[in-house]
Amino acid sequence: MGFTEVDTKTINTIRVLAADATAHANSGHPGAPMGMAPVAHVLFNKIMRFNPKNPKWLNRDRFVLSNGHGCMLQYALLHLYGYALSIDDLKAFRTVDSITPGHPEAHDTPGVEVTTGPLGQGISNAVGLAMAQAHTAAVFNKPGYDLVDNYTYAFLGDGCLMEGVSSEACSLAGHLQLGNLIAVWDDNHITIDGDTNQAFTEDVLKRYESYGWHTITVEDGDNDLEGILHAFKKAQEVKDKPTLIQLKTIIGFGSKQQGTHGVHGAPLKADDIKQLKEKFGFDPEKSFDVPQEVYDHCRKASNAGAAAEEEWNKLFAKYSEEYKGEAADLVRRQKGDLPEGWEKNLPVYTPADAAVASRKLSEIVINKIFDAVPELVGGSADLTGSNLTRSKGSIDFQPPATGLGTYDGRYIRYGVREHGMGAIMNGLAAYGTIIPYGGTFLNFVSYAAGAVRLSALSQARAIWVATHDSIGLGEDGPTHQPIEVLTHFRALPNCMVWRPADGNETSAAYYVALTSKHTPSIIALSRQNLPQLEGSTIEKAIKGGYVLHEQEGADITLVSTGSEVCIAIDAVKLLAEKHSIKARVVSLPCFEVFDTQPKDYQLSVLPDGIPSLSIEVMSTMGWEKYTHEQFGLNRFGASGPYKDVYAKFEFTPEGVAKRALQTIDFWKGVPVRSPINRAFQQIL
Amino acid sequence: MGFTEVDTKTINTIRVLAADATAHANSGHPGAPMGMAPVAHVLFNKIMRFNPKNPKWLNRDRFVLSNGHGCMLQYALLHLYGYALSIDDLKAFRTVDSITPGHPEAHDTPGVEVTTGPLGQGISNAVGLAMAQAHTAAVFNKPGYDLVDNYTYAFLGDGCLMEGVSSEACSLAGHLQLGNLIAVWDDNHITIDGDTNQAFTEDVLKRYESYGWHTITVEDGDNDLEGILHAFKKAQEVKDKPTLIQLKTIIGFGSKQQGTHGVHGAPLKADDIKQLKEKFGFDPEKSFDVPQEVYDHCRKASNAGAAAEEEWNKLFAKYSEEYKGEAADLVRRQKGDLPEGWEKNLPVYTPADAAVASRKLSEIVINKIFDAVPELVGGSADLTGSNLTRSKGSIDFQPPATGLGTYDGRYIRYGVREHGMGAIMNGLAAYGTIIPYGGTFLNFVSYAAGAVRLSALSQARAIWVATHDSIGLGEDGPTHQPIEVLTHFRALPNCMVWRPADGNETSAAYYVALTSKHTPSIIALSRQNLPQLEGSTIEKAIKGGYVLHEQEGADITLVSTGSEVCIAIDAVKLLAEKHSIKARVVSLPCFEVFDTQPKDYQLSVLPDGIPSLSIEVMSTMGWEKYTHEQFGLNRFGASGPYKDVYAKFEFTPEGVAKRALQTIDFWKGVPVRSPINRAFQQIL
Repeated sequence: MGFTEVDTKTINTIRVLAADATAHANSGHPGAPMGMAPVAHVLFNKIMRFNPKNPKWLNRDRFVLSNGHGCMLQYALLHLYGYALSIDDLKAFRTVDSITPGHPEAHDTPGVEVTTGPLGQGISNAVGLAMAQAHTAAVFNKPGYDLVDNYTYAFLGDGCLMEGVSSEACSLAGHLQLGNLIAVWDDNHITIDGDTNQAFTEDVLKRYESYGWHTITVEDGDNDLEGILHAFKKAQEVKDKPTLIQLKTIIGFGSKQQGTHGVHGAPLKADDIKQLKEKFGFDPEKSFDVPQEVYDHCRKASNAGAAAEEEWNKLFAKYSEEYKGEAADLVRRQKGDLPEGWEKNLPVYTPADAAVASRKLSEIVINKIFDAVPELVGGSADLTGSNLTRSKGSIDFQPPATGLGTYDGRYIRYGVREHGMGAIMNGLAAYGTIIPYGGTFLNFVSYAAGAVRLSALSQARAIWVATHDSIGLGEDGPTHQPIEVLTHFRALPNCMVWRPADGNETSAAYYVALTSKHTPSIIALSRQNLPQLEGSTIEKAIKGGYVLHEQEGADITLVSTGSEVCIAIDAVKLLAEKHSIKARVVSLPCFEVFDTQPKDYQLSVLPDGIPSLSIEVMSTMGWEKYTHEQFGLNRFGASGPYKDVYAKFEFTPEGVAKRALQTIDFWKGVPVRSPINRAFQQIL
Repeated sequence: MGFTEVDTKTINTIRVLAADATAHANSGHPGAPMGMAPVAHVLFNKIMRFNPKNPKWLNRDRFVLSNGHGCMLQYALLHLYGYALSIDDLKAFRTVDSITPGHPEAHDTPGVEVTTGPLGQGISNAVGLAMAQAHTAAVFNKPGYDLVDNYTYAFLGDGCLMEGVSSEACSLAGHLQLGNLIAVWDDNHITIDGDTNQAFTEDVLKRYESYGWHTITVEDGDNDLEGILHAFKKAQEVKDKPTLIQLKTIIGFGSKQQGTHGVHGAPLKADDIKQLKEKFGFDPEKSFDVPQEVYDHCRKASNAGAAAEEEWNKLFAKYSEEYKGEAADLVRRQKGDLPEGWEKNLPVYTPADAAVASRKLSEIVINKIFDAVPELVGGSADLTGSNLTRSKGSIDFQPPATGLGTYDGRYIRYGVREHGMGAIMNGLAAYGTIIPYGGTFLNFVSYAAGAVRLSALSQARAIWVATHDSIGLGEDGPTHQPIEVLTHFRALPNCMVWRPADGNETSAAYYVALTSKHTPSIIALSRQNLPQLEGSTIEKAIKGGYVLHEQEGADITLVSTGSEVCIAIDAVKLLAEKHSIKARVVSLPCFEVFDTQPKDYQLSVLPDGIPSLSIEVMSTMGWEKYTHEQFGLNRFGASGPYKDVYAKFEFTPEGVAKRALQTIDFWKGVPVRSPINRAFQQIL
């Protein structure tokens, strides 16, 4: 191809912009952008296919900056190539309400595919993006129509390589033979603490080879543009393995402090920037100065990308004629809409139906809607038979060469890799054609907390099928019994936590999870059987909370979720028969959704004048927002048959009734205001 | 050595006991115990040094069952070798309040070193145990006195190998050249979902070699006892690398279903157990039947262990004469007591002292107490300069060969491995001679949630130095700003969450963290400067909550933590000056400790009759337990200079005053009962 001076100029422009923006913000990480400017330039200018005017074009190559602290690299590229990110946006780097925050955020910034910064997440998201590409291609491509054939490129640093989440995801990527995934390791020997030899002396390439990856080394990542280009091309040729390119670079290249951790996380000093600009032929008096030839050079590549999309649009138009249904499906999926009428498949129950574990009810939902919602792609972290996540007769997502499945298969065998699964789901969701769900025990969603947090922040529609949701799992004992988990995720913004009490509520949980385009969900499901409740309907449950059992002149409201609702119902009988107490029952399967209801509805469910008691067999923390008193479990559980464990902690009709009486007694003679009433609104 | 029939009998006794106990409990995992019985037998009978009569003997070899679901293997061994675990305890397997719960729990069962079951944790704990051994040996051994030279043995399955936490810990173990660590991989090709080829096809030995481990393969782990013995001996000889022994086994060996996932997690059927016993020469009519010769064979090894301890005790007696101080120190450490007078080193502040970030205040504490508390061994997940965790002039814990430190060094470079760090800290704490602390940003303690949970459950004194504890970290933005994290860990039983507001409170946090022998702590610390508060003292703060600013006839109580306390104080002035409102201020740095105070003290801090408002710049969830109204942040933060971010969300004296007025207004004319009053006690 032949690189010329304008290539060097472009690379140095990126470096100078990174130095300028971090200095202007007096905050940020110039080192990685300056070190990775050459590889970024080669990738964006000569390799990647994208159209800045339509950052959502389906068949674009995906770029993930897993070392997200180096985001000035990405912002500089987005600006130079003509995305909707101006020079003023660069000047607003790391200021409130800018589109150039301290780490890349997908929902804020055009051209940012996934939210990165928490180390190890981006490369794991990239595995998900690559899986999504393989799946989408297998489903939609037809002879003569390679509609979907994009690559996923990821940059990552030593930190990403050290994080366990990336080990999980990359081991799976090797197994899955994702030839469309190309990662570049910025091997600069520097982390925040100094030289990597202090803590990170493993043979990285050997490790990735052990995962089944193809590896390439570029010795001089600072200058050898041809070598970099050649590495990308070689990587593209390897179709049955992901590639890791080891790129040896000098962090903060051009700075007086280059090669030290001094350039990692702090802006360059003024005199350093001055010498940098002089060295690279820039005017040291000017900041944020981009030579026109650099813009032109970049925009030429962007224009080629736009032309490529135009070609693709023609191809898609032809495809739409020949494969009408597929084309419509693909368009629909990208909008995030579900197929019309899909919800008619949701099962509905009456109290006459048998008692069933809610994990089993979840399986029934999955089976019923699986054909109607083809973008549902599920899996489990090696607990398929316990989570009941696999739709009957579904095909595994596997490389055809394994003989175990195909890429159009919709069931992913994640292995025992919860955090990897969570981060991969974020990548699957980000691709735009898939709604991912994944199963594990509720307790082990905590292993994936880092990824769940980013689902919420980046507004990814990912669904956790979280079974064995309490001490009700019984014999496995305290190591497996969640106490704090629901509280944790209820406290996480933009994350729905569902704990359905029966079949109708399970259907409701899936209904809301699937129709909420911008919010992840955790559906907590029981191991033990639960009766179908009198008074529950999908329509009521999708409000997040509702009156399950009304009672004129009630003395108390019992509020509960999941497997404890039926205990509350039994307590109502006991209270009436033994104590002549009238109790009403509220089921509150999802706090977050209930919080969005109008206040008068909320007050109709949790009215003034009646004391209330929550019943949930885990941490009471957070329940004070809805009820006056709380019956829960603020200690670890116990190992034993589940009925014995429930009895040990008095989670029985008798135990509930006892506390209901104490609650009524305690609130006697006191004006009872519903906790729904608050002095002021929260900032949202 | 020569194995005889009694060895085979012992192995088969373990298998039969595992089958009996899981059948009796109608729950549990027979497959791994039956498959690993041979290696377990060789290890316990011919290799390991331990004294069942004193399971806490310092120089015992440590055994960790990382695949904790196979705990019937461990329980059978503990029984056979004469630990305080009877045949009735085996019969009580997986029943409430037994010492044989569904997964091994260290605080419950003599001979169980660490709590395992959540996959990947045990092997990572083992890395910590091996590090602790290396450190303790380097500190205490003297010429002629190899007081501490034990090995750490860990069994692990495919699940443990897939989990990222083990990747992190094992990469570090290789770097640290831990020759005293010997792990056995039960390579049985089976996980819950079936054959490992579905998701786990990496080259495990190659991966471990890339980490710097020594590897050995035993082809026939079911029968080749000599081969197993030889492998252990070879592993012991390699002094500068941990060893991974790949042991090829058949899961559920002896069962009709052997080699399938049918034996993984469900008891064998009656006819299967019958044929098993017949095949192995046991009476099929008897259960829990241990031949006397098997007891004798095992007890011989136990007696040898007891004799070894006796020898060691003599050695230690001599050592105590020659190295009085060291010996006393070692004895003291094992009791968990701190050196007398250590607390005099805790810094004390007055309002005249300068405003300092609490992460810096934490550094000052560490520096001041580091010499006085020699068992403190700290580190950071590659954020040393940000967490400020390294005591001035301390030596790094490194293999001497690296030239970067020594094993008696007390500062650990964990690399970017939060989850591994957490699990390693549990191992360090379990060894008995170290109090570990580790630093990262508060937001990334979430990456280690799985390990923190086990710190709490297993009562490990591990301390998290969790800096950058709120939106106050500023520019790094929402990806790094905790919202839900404190709520999460406050909801976790037996975990102290501290958020000190100034220097005295920081000293108090360390005081309670260090003197709480059975509880982990998370100390949340600010990036930004905080003034030294009028009214704070260590003595008050160690109560978890106290009145910082009292006010006769107060209209409102403002309750706050950490960096928001000084904002509350400023709001008091504003309320007085502009609104003639009297406000008192409570600082509540630790919920869990405050909860242990007598009720009358709690009511003196949060009295009846005065409405209260909490002020904490993160999730309000959980604050309803202490206050009537809550000012917090139930959304993600923003990237920008921290003062701008605080202003955006109205966390200013004005914003607090506004909500204080709304609170007073809302509670006017209503009888105000302190939330401390409850209808009934929680089950603890």
